[in-house]
Amino acid sequence: MDQLISELTAALGAGGVITDIDSVAGGWSRVGKPCAILRPRSTNEVSAVLRLAHAAGAPIVPWGGKTGLVDGANAEGQLALSLELMNRVEAVDVEASTLTVQAGCPLQTACEAAEARHLFLPLDLGSRGSATIGGNISTNAGGNRVLRYGMVREMVLGLEAVLADGTVVSAMSPLIKNNTGYDLKQLFIGAEGTLGVVTRATLRLRPQPLSQDVAVLGVERFEQLPRLLRHLEARLGGALSAFEVMWASFHDLVTTAPAKGRPPLDGRYPYYVLVETLGADPAADRARLEAALEAGFAEDLIADAALAGSEAQRQALWALRDDVAQVARNGPIITFDVSLAISAMESYVAELEAVLQTKWPGINLVVFGHLGDGNLHLIVGLPGAEARHPIEEVVYGLLRTRDGSISAEHGIGLQKREFLPLSRSPAEIAVMRTLKAALDPKNILNPGKIFAAA
Amino acid sequence: MDQLISELTAALGAGGVITDIDSVAGGWSRVGKPCAILRPRSTNEVSAVLRLAHAAGAPIVPWGGKTGLVDGANAEGQLALSLELMNRVEAVDVEASTLTVQAGCPLQTACEAAEARHLFLPLDLGSRGSATIGGNISTNAGGNRVLRYGMVREMVLGLEAVLADGTVVSAMSPLIKNNTGYDLKQLFIGAEGTLGVVTRATLRLRPQPLSQDVAVLGVERFEQLPRLLRHLEARLGGALSAFEVMWASFHDLVTTAPAKGRPPLDGRYPYYVLVETLGADPAADRARLEAALEAGFAEDLIADAALAGSEAQRQALWALRDDVAQVARNGPIITFDVSLAISAMESYVAELEAVLQTKWPGINLVVFGHLGDGNLHLIVGLPGAEARHPIEEVVYGLLRTRDGSISAEHGIGLQKREFLPLSRSPAEIAVMRTLKAALDPKNILNPGKIFAAA
Repeated sequence: MDQLISELTAALGAGGVITDIDSVAGGWSRVGKPCAILRPRSTNEVSAVLRLAHAAGAPIVPWGGKTGLVDGANAEGQLALSLELMNRVEAVDVEASTLTVQAGCPLQTACEAAEARHLFLPLDLGSRGSATIGGNISTNAGGNRVLRYGMVREMVLGLEAVLADGTVVSAMSPLIKNNTGYDLKQLFIGAEGTLGVVTRATLRLRPQPLSQDVAVLGVERFEQLPRLLRHLEARLGGALSAFEVMWASFHDLVTTAPAKGRPPLDGRYPYYVLVETLGADPAADRARLEAALEAGFAEDLIADAALAGSEAQRQALWALRDDVAQVARNGPIITFDVSLAISAMESYVAELEAVLQTKWPGINLVVFGHLGDGNLHLIVGLPGAEARHPIEEVVYGLLRTRDGSISAEHGIGLQKREFLPLSRSPAEIAVMRTLKAALDPKNILNPGKIFAAA
Repeated sequence: MDQLISELTAALGAGGVITDIDSVAGGWSRVGKPCAILRPRSTNEVSAVLRLAHAAGAPIVPWGGKTGLVDGANAEGQLALSLELMNRVEAVDVEASTLTVQAGCPLQTACEAAEARHLFLPLDLGSRGSATIGGNISTNAGGNRVLRYGMVREMVLGLEAVLADGTVVSAMSPLIKNNTGYDLKQLFIGAEGTLGVVTRATLRLRPQPLSQDVAVLGVERFEQLPRLLRHLEARLGGALSAFEVMWASFHDLVTTAPAKGRPPLDGRYPYYVLVETLGADPAADRARLEAALEAGFAEDLIADAALAGSEAQRQALWALRDDVAQVARNGPIITFDVSLAISAMESYVAELEAVLQTKWPGINLVVFGHLGDGNLHLIVGLPGAEARHPIEEVVYGLLRTRDGSISAEHGIGLQKREFLPLSRSPAEIAVMRTLKAALDPKNILNPGKIFAAA
């Protein structure tokens, strides 16, 4: 390893290799203590790093903003490849409506660069300040506006990645349509850094919305939620950009001290829905949302509603949904990120609550999520470290009969590896291994993430 | 081959293998005369066919509706695997807003099944009556509404495919979000049947639009077109579903006998734009489009406009754009399907016209396309069979300096194979070959399509 590190130091120059590491702040997930942090400044330097590591058979763990939730960036004792110095916005092309960035560019920086040119990058998630575009791509990030704009996969037009042996695959076409053979960028999106290191990307931008309306709705019964969603989709003609549901358990947490939020409605409801529309005509769009909500009352889908009347009120409503940090205020937790058909959700949450309470009386379950996408976030208070695995078995086990997924958007990393066969068949996992072996035969790229070596 | 065909006959039963073949109608592209047409009735039968073919090392050419344009289904002297008996709509799930079909289901049948449940499959293309969903997936079809709804890739939630050795990979999850390891379905979408045979799919449906408005606009100068597109995108708040441009050459063809269309505007313009909006509120949506068009006049983006006032008028305007058959009425043609940045289009078409006229005086060039997606269809009259290749060299060669793509939506097949290196780098093509070798080591699945064997 010493010789490899001196070769890497020669390749990356001063500041390019950090070996004096005390500990690394890793957000919500373990990133471990790497033996060195490599900080290339260009795609060529990433390629040089991988050529050297490949020759030495040394594992490389790519690092973006280290905001992942599944230990996908855990580099304990290995070489961490940080993209932090490759953080530039390279171009905003207004006429083509595209943004080209280096992979280490923080999401928020990218969004602001688009906004400065009156364009819109519709990816939005809580860790926007530190998460990087490369990490967003490698995890196929979702977030708050998937309902309308899709996940990151649908925003990537072009992508550059470096393969395990240092080969640079530059597929940076900014074209929306390009059916010229296999769409290689799809391989690297959501692969958690196991098939290549994403170094640059061209993203599709959208027109900047000229109107934004946000409302919180109180809903009495779960069965009203999918009907309300379809009602709004049909009435709002493509303008609906978020349909976020907070169970009362989540609402209570984010509206009581030390949280700064205040209850948005007078009564207390089992379900709160945050609805957002983005449009082009402020007065007409607001009237359309108001009419859709009135019809929702008339059709007995909504019990109460508060429509934000100012930018401050819009921000206050979103702040409730974004104040996820509150879920950790009462002690250790496990976070889950499952998806399943909306029709299966009510029975799933009820059965989960019942089984958890039977096994761990008094256990705390908080539920919220991107209901419009079939995605629930479940937060379970951890009664003790030894309960982690049996709780995981309950949460994931109840998905099996419901054709659910153990990860809607966070990915597999190390944390969910054991449970991957609950969501993917042996044939699927065999094809994944075939791809991994074909592209990274020495198994040096983020080895052990998603699945263990065969 | 005789022994293989008797094994296949035993596996598929009566009617499952056709060997008495005179000729095969192939639409616009050559499908050749296969030595047998295999017609499995189930995924298991597809698997049995591939197991036998794999053992024998015999090439298999998957057939959908045979409406492709690049000879991707050419099965001359080989075994054609037709999905025509696997044509069922399996389910429309209204609550989940999904459609599950067998791969041989025609696109139009799938669209009608969705419509019957008040849902909308937004894929629309000229060959909708015979093209199949499996073929649409294998070619990542585009069509008229990519601008708003994306290509087929963005509509596929779940997919089942059979690998070269007969392994069934069933990734039929209907979930919008499912980040559990590699997204294998992406491999088979747009792979032209070279990595697996698509047998079933679950597609995402949308709310059925409650309003549709269609207009044709006359535009004087090319530079107004991208500005007009951005203007409408910004003003229509997500409702814009088509922005199709017809050059005067195309307009003239489809509005003169024997074509049935009539000129939609009084004057004659260099460019005609077909604009469509789909929404949820007929009166408000129409008013919004009218206001956007009025603003377009005021900003000097439009010279004339005709807004359809009835369903018959809407259909008549779309019929102009759909009457592509006219391009072949004056003799043999070559069709091209390129994409490039809108900013590069005017100089590209001008230079192309100039070079073609210099080399083949009087040659006919007709241009139209999905301008909102950067996609141009070019139709060149063929002065003689020997001119085909030099004309291809001109059309594709002029894309090189403009970072264009030789295929926006039709694919590579056999026809564009030689030109693939114009759009994809050696590193990209090498990765494609790596994938092909990993998944189909005997090279039996549609061999020679996209690229020749290494």
